[in-house]
Amino acid sequence: MIAFKEAYEKVLSHSQTYGMEKVLLASSMGRVLSEDVFADRDFPPFDRSTKDGIAIDYEGIVNGLFEFNIEGVVAAGTPKTKLSNTNNCLEIMTGAVLPENTNTVIMYEDVTIENGKATINKQPNKGQNIHRRGGDEKEGALVLEENTKISASEIGVLAAVGKAEIWVKKLPKITLISTGNELVEVTDTPLPYQIRKSNMHSLYAALSEENVVPQQLHLADDKALIKKELSKAMLKNDVLMLSGGVSMGKYDFIPAVLEELGVKKVFHKVLQRPGKPFWFGLHKESNTVLFSFPGNPVSTFANYHIYFKDWFNKSLGLSIPKIDVVLAQAIMVEGTLTRFIRVKINVVHGKLVAGLVTGNGSGDLTSLAKSDGFIRLEPMAQSYEKGDIVPFVATRRKA
Amino acid sequence: MIAFKEAYEKVLSHSQTYGMEKVLLASSMGRVLSEDVFADRDFPPFDRSTKDGIAIDYEGIVNGLFEFNIEGVVAAGTPKTKLSNTNNCLEIMTGAVLPENTNTVIMYEDVTIENGKATINKQPNKGQNIHRRGGDEKEGALVLEENTKISASEIGVLAAVGKAEIWVKKLPKITLISTGNELVEVTDTPLPYQIRKSNMHSLYAALSEENVVPQQLHLADDKALIKKELSKAMLKNDVLMLSGGVSMGKYDFIPAVLEELGVKKVFHKVLQRPGKPFWFGLHKESNTVLFSFPGNPVSTFANYHIYFKDWFNKSLGLSIPKIDVVLAQAIMVEGTLTRFIRVKINVVHGKLVAGLVTGNGSGDLTSLAKSDGFIRLEPMAQSYEKGDIVPFVATRRKA
Repeated sequence: MIAFKEAYEKVLSHSQTYGMEKVLLASSMGRVLSEDVFADRDFPPFDRSTKDGIAIDYEGIVNGLFEFNIEGVVAAGTPKTKLSNTNNCLEIMTGAVLPENTNTVIMYEDVTIENGKATINKQPNKGQNIHRRGGDEKEGALVLEENTKISASEIGVLAAVGKAEIWVKKLPKITLISTGNELVEVTDTPLPYQIRKSNMHSLYAALSEENVVPQQLHLADDKALIKKELSKAMLKNDVLMLSGGVSMGKYDFIPAVLEELGVKKVFHKVLQRPGKPFWFGLHKESNTVLFSFPGNPVSTFANYHIYFKDWFNKSLGLSIPKIDVVLAQAIMVEGTLTRFIRVKINVVHGKLVAGLVTGNGSGDLTSLAKSDGFIRLEPMAQSYEKGDIVPFVATRRKA
Repeated sequence: MIAFKEAYEKVLSHSQTYGMEKVLLASSMGRVLSEDVFADRDFPPFDRSTKDGIAIDYEGIVNGLFEFNIEGVVAAGTPKTKLSNTNNCLEIMTGAVLPENTNTVIMYEDVTIENGKATINKQPNKGQNIHRRGGDEKEGALVLEENTKISASEIGVLAAVGKAEIWVKKLPKITLISTGNELVEVTDTPLPYQIRKSNMHSLYAALSEENVVPQQLHLADDKALIKKELSKAMLKNDVLMLSGGVSMGKYDFIPAVLEELGVKKVFHKVLQRPGKPFWFGLHKESNTVLFSFPGNPVSTFANYHIYFKDWFNKSLGLSIPKIDVVLAQAIMVEGTLTRFIRVKINVVHGKLVAGLVTGNGSGDLTSLAKSDGFIRLEPMAQSYEKGDIVPFVATRRKA
């Protein structure tokens, strides 16, 4: 039995790397960049009008001109044009290339156009309404760094610099394994002593948010079968995530089988609640990492978010954000275990305020649906007070 | 030209409902429940042992017993058994049904087992280590409410109550439409006066986070073509989301075409920056809602998150969270426009602290990749101060 912090550090110190693969831009959402991305040209690539209006040579304004003959119209998407007479103007559209011999754009709102002439109603500033070539980024500039998670805004940048294909971090191959003879399928009507599987479904869903589509396997409480199947699964996967079978029970074969299969136990059992009977190990030959969670839904869900998610992010090269929140109420934590307590988060005047969720048994699945995550509290002689700042593990994405 | 608040309220007042559809549990992640979900049985469905150990009748303890003959072993997933002699015990596994004639479970850690006898090392409490039938939820209890967004924890609950198929809100059919002759494909090498499409890609990616797979259409700046294609698209979609062609330019045909097609303009242009030339309307005959955003990447991205996302969530029955954040630095906002300013959010001692991102031109795509969203600031005679609390629009999912 080890302390939470030690367990957490051991898990993170076993982070892996899985190499990289090329994906299409449209499939890259949520993936992690495995290359630096550079501007392939200046952004914008030309002096670009940011308004619809007229382009002039400011010299005319200096010389007292306020009426300009219109030489023509410049649309976006057409090659660079030229103003022939610098006392004239060209109508210009947003996104168009600024014509040669012009240096200032006056928007239609400040111009009256009549009989082929544009009369300005407002004194312009030299160089206004022009987005200068390279004003955002110079050709060759680093625009996205390796180890960045790709969200919608990164997709826009990748598109702009012409990355139709992108090197991203490969994802580990994961199989979810449930054990427990009491478990039946969601589509089954359970007998009075049976319950439906739920952990596999919530883990599958949680992994889908990480772009991982895991394999799934259910094993009956039969030691020989478990050994045979785990041995096969080990060779085919980078990660095995198990739920159940790691306590003190007579049919909790997992720890013994894993050791028989040559998996190095890093630790078994952590001084925490929920999630105490967590078994973590590494099979060196196949380089498979084993997260063997207790069968209780709350324990598995908590440990997935506390340990696996940070391990996963670290393995992909992402930094691990530390979030802390403000307690909405006092709470007493006695005993010797690090506690993970379900909370609902409200943003109040810029503060993340954590309120306790009722129903905190480790089997209580519905309370998870009422909470946004867990606060982590170490036992203390005195009470945690309202307003105290404590670490937080999110279990739900908030927009 | 209308004020931001008025525009925002008008958009939200045009929220729609799109009915419901049945999906499989495995496809329900991220969808919105269109039914209340009830417990189909008590949870847990039986008095359930929460530990591996022995089950006894506490009466024995009262009578001074500390040694119990072991009658047998009760595994999880087996029918309810019975302790024959209440001075004996049964070994019991986590998740097993508490046997008749027992009312207390003592974990192995507090018991010594030798020669078919269990000797207890620690005084138990009556009823300990039993998760009572219905202790979490009674049969028929409401466990998930309609209009809840399904995350991994809700998936667990749905699985537990046997919802293999779920009624969820139907999603609107959306087509993304880009205009602008200067735009080329990501795979193209643009000519000096061309740029690659980026808005379509970032909007597509953003919609994928809402489980929407939009159609895509690019239209050249040709009024007749635009009219023909928009007319067709209107009939086939619940939402058209356009980018570009809504300013004052000679080739900004969108507003005129939409009005010719009988789309009711709700407003055009909002007193805001970025995103001013936003055109919003409704085609009553086909009940199609039109979000016609300016072509600038930052403007489109901002307006998608400011207007569309809340409209979308409201249309699906979700509540719209209001988030505010704390300014990391003073900022002056002059003029008459509501400003949306790119910020990076850090959680510092439970506070969401917003720091400004450099590069705030409305064409500056790379600055979006550096930011987590926009703060919304109304112009003020005096400066906003460090520590002020201001509204925030998230553009990136954290954790």
